[in-house]
Amino acid sequence: MKHEPSLERISLNQITTEKWDLKEAINGCVRHDVPWISVWRHKLNEYGLQESKKMIQESGLQVSSLCRGGMFPASSLPERKKRIEDNKRAVDEAAELGTDVLVLVCGPAPDKDIDTARKWVQEGIEEVLPYAEQHGVKLGIEPLHPMYAADRSVIVTMEEANELTEQFASPYIGVVVDVFHVWWDPNLYYHIDRARESILGFHVSDWPVPPPDLFKGRGMMGDGAIELRRIRQAVEAAGYHGPIEVEIINQAIWDTPGDEVLNTMKKRFVEHC
Amino acid sequence: MKHEPSLERISLNQITTEKWDLKEAINGCVRHDVPWISVWRHKLNEYGLQESKKMIQESGLQVSSLCRGGMFPASSLPERKKRIEDNKRAVDEAAELGTDVLVLVCGPAPDKDIDTARKWVQEGIEEVLPYAEQHGVKLGIEPLHPMYAADRSVIVTMEEANELTEQFASPYIGVVVDVFHVWWDPNLYYHIDRARESILGFHVSDWPVPPPDLFKGRGMMGDGAIELRRIRQAVEAAGYHGPIEVEIINQAIWDTPGDEVLNTMKKRFVEHC
Repeated sequence: MKHEPSLERISLNQITTEKWDLKEAINGCVRHDVPWISVWRHKLNEYGLQESKKMIQESGLQVSSLCRGGMFPASSLPERKKRIEDNKRAVDEAAELGTDVLVLVCGPAPDKDIDTARKWVQEGIEEVLPYAEQHGVKLGIEPLHPMYAADRSVIVTMEEANELTEQFASPYIGVVVDVFHVWWDPNLYYHIDRARESILGFHVSDWPVPPPDLFKGRGMMGDGAIELRRIRQAVEAAGYHGPIEVEIINQAIWDTPGDEVLNTMKKRFVEHC
Repeated sequence: MKHEPSLERISLNQITTEKWDLKEAINGCVRHDVPWISVWRHKLNEYGLQESKKMIQESGLQVSSLCRGGMFPASSLPERKKRIEDNKRAVDEAAELGTDVLVLVCGPAPDKDIDTARKWVQEGIEEVLPYAEQHGVKLGIEPLHPMYAADRSVIVTMEEANELTEQFASPYIGVVVDVFHVWWDPNLYYHIDRARESILGFHVSDWPVPPPDLFKGRGMMGDGAIELRRIRQAVEAAGYHGPIEVEIINQAIWDTPGDEVLNTMKKRFVEHC
């Protein structure tokens, strides 16, 4: 296990440079020798799927993941079915872009009933998984921070993501570990170890003290409270050696020129991750 | 188990009417037939401990808890010892005010090492507990929401609070359940049941979607995503039938006249808790 991570593993999660469109993000990665990119679905609309695919292929970049599927819970059965269809389209897009990971942000409860919402997440994954398997795309369940339980994801711990994964017992389902979401968990290292070969992605940022905002609250690596290197080494010890996405949702960083952000993130990645 | 809670159990946690001093809060409770009050230590300074005690006794109010002890982790041993002494003063004050519960907000890590901070919490409680036992004051470990792990408490789940409690095996240590902090936990009901007789307090508010602020983010009961009645009934089924504190940290509610806040909180308590 190396002390510092290789820059061959760094990936720009597109949300970090939110003001760049896909072409600008691709060109930025090429300019800064960032070999991976994680693409957001709403950014695909800017150029369309085929043109996006062509731009990425011509750049030589690899796609670490497509963000995001999920959002399964809804009050009515037709709406839940609609969302399952949308997840299948996301699988198609991931396959088209040449990435084998679709990140799932599982969705909040449509009302106060969090248990039922969790059941709907399970049912949703059950419906999408065979389709993902057929298309060679893995579903990466990303537990979100509990502060997003009411508006983004009822799946909030590594334990929940592991239990879901273990239920399906398929190599096409697994867990995405994002330090911002899970760093506080007293059982974190146990559950990283338990996840083992099912870890499908690893995301870094930091937790400023306190965060400037609930949604746009993440910091650059090194600017917060998270034991980044310890978590990265645990994820490696569990067997994950794939790309490491830098995913930072932060207005001040969005307002910084993208080239500066990429310079800083590479430096901080080596220093702190 | 009653469908709605009795107003004989409602307690005004003083932070809910932050702009009132202790005398105003006492008078407000008397005017509105709120039989319990939870006192914050910084509010005691306004009139001094003896005068505060006298005012409370003359009002006929009962004190549900003193808020707060804790804040154990610190980098240096002398500083940790100083904090333990401060916790003993808090025990003295609780005993003097006639409440048997001192709420512990356990404190953040002084650096990134969250494991060591958790160990310091345990050591701190170990030192304070015999003193609390001698003075007939119970230490109530309040797990805080994981979004406060970096600046307020490394104890963030009911599981951690239960494990700490079980280690000491004393009737003078237990858990305070605050819905805002724990509602998202997939293991919540298991851990409420596991806590059993060691539940020392129950706090209500709500989780607005999304909260207006990280610190001042709580809502009035009924204005958010929390299954309040379900949690209250689970806490009762586990054996807790003591006072229920309304603890809301929210700028808009602080800016509302206190009498209006007390009217609303009584109504919402009956409707939603």
